[in-house]
Amino acid sequence: MATGAGDHGEAAEVTVVDFWANGFGMRARIALRELGVPFRYVEEDLRVRERSELVLRMNPVHRSIPILIHAGRGPVCGSLNILEYIDEVWGMEKGAPLLPRDDPLQRAHARFWADFVDQKVFSTQTRFLKSRGEEKAAAGAELLDQLRRLEGVLGDRPFFAGDGFGFLDAVLVPFSSMFYGYEQHGGFDLERECPGLVRWVRRCRERDSVRAVLPDEVQMYELHKEWYGIE
Amino acid sequence: MATGAGDHGEAAEVTVVDFWANGFGMRARIALRELGVPFRYVEEDLRVRERSELVLRMNPVHRSIPILIHAGRGPVCGSLNILEYIDEVWGMEKGAPLLPRDDPLQRAHARFWADFVDQKVFSTQTRFLKSRGEEKAAAGAELLDQLRRLEGVLGDRPFFAGDGFGFLDAVLVPFSSMFYGYEQHGGFDLERECPGLVRWVRRCRERDSVRAVLPDEVQMYELHKEWYGIE
Repeated sequence: MATGAGDHGEAAEVTVVDFWANGFGMRARIALRELGVPFRYVEEDLRVRERSELVLRMNPVHRSIPILIHAGRGPVCGSLNILEYIDEVWGMEKGAPLLPRDDPLQRAHARFWADFVDQKVFSTQTRFLKSRGEEKAAAGAELLDQLRRLEGVLGDRPFFAGDGFGFLDAVLVPFSSMFYGYEQHGGFDLERECPGLVRWVRRCRERDSVRAVLPDEVQMYELHKEWYGIE
Repeated sequence: MATGAGDHGEAAEVTVVDFWANGFGMRARIALRELGVPFRYVEEDLRVRERSELVLRMNPVHRSIPILIHAGRGPVCGSLNILEYIDEVWGMEKGAPLLPRDDPLQRAHARFWADFVDQKVFSTQTRFLKSRGEEKAAAGAELLDQLRRLEGVLGDRPFFAGDGFGFLDAVLVPFSSMFYGYEQHGGFDLERECPGLVRWVRRCRERDSVRAVLPDEVQMYELHKEWYGIE
């Protein structure tokens, strides 16, 4: 059982069950740090096939992580669901919500692109890493298209949310821990392909919240090579 | 171009682009009617392969429906995203929001099960309708399990949201327009398999909002037979 920087020990009000290389769970850990919410971190090793008793009990439907456990209230499962919960409980009181409080259209915009990341980018990444030859080349080209599309959404703002770090920033930035892996695997240079997005990643990495959570990208790629049987 | 009961003609502030048999889009139309928001309904015939110019312009990323167009603001795409938007813009002023306003945990609970419907129930339904023989039997059993699980979530409350009709009710009730199709296709009796859920469907269908939107279930199954090549 590992503990986060903001660990409250046994008395922690918030617990996050996650795995260090889980891009979905990184979102929750980054968001909590952004909002200054202390939490206990419990590591669930996804390399082990069996899930822990805690995960089976807290998320019997999907048996997946991340799980946020808010003491005395209950578990919240699903990374976007957790982000909404974190924002609703702590975003207001901290004065800097992840989703703009009074702009339903901007909120819808952020949720739309978060869904794009989950439904499109993640499945393309998986196909890219799993496949060989022509299929890999096609998936790689598609992945670059999707990243460039997100770069277009960012435009020339510092963050997806505008001047401050927000919902879609927390959703996407964990994927940047695979950018080194993308380059190794696809033989392309992201600095050249989507320079604006790479600059955004650097900007995010200047934040304590992001730096504390994003794993080493070489280790990240090594793990994915193992997972996807990449030589 | 069909028009909704609450049609404001050319001056309508809200337009929904949808297809009569699209269970995802039905959610938005039901929610707007629940909240008493007039809207213009534009039919996009999904039986035609090509998408209309309106859909290509309003949802260039996915080219899918439903799309909610809020005049002077912009399009919102993705059915759950649209429900959140509808609730944020009109739910409060109508005094009966779809998601409980001040209970982040209940909101998370509703979103969790909405995601379950989209990620699990919908894909199981598709597999059930597409497959034959043993695979069909297995998918049918899985579908029943998922419906019974949802029945367990409902418990003995009148609606998923409690005493009133809410978010998860709007998310799930369109699937009930395929219940006749499930029974025909799988040879089971839903009244016997999940009586509480069937009672919930009847309760929902007593509402004007639901009755106005849910299509005839025989027509619905005929269309799906065509789509999935069922004899």
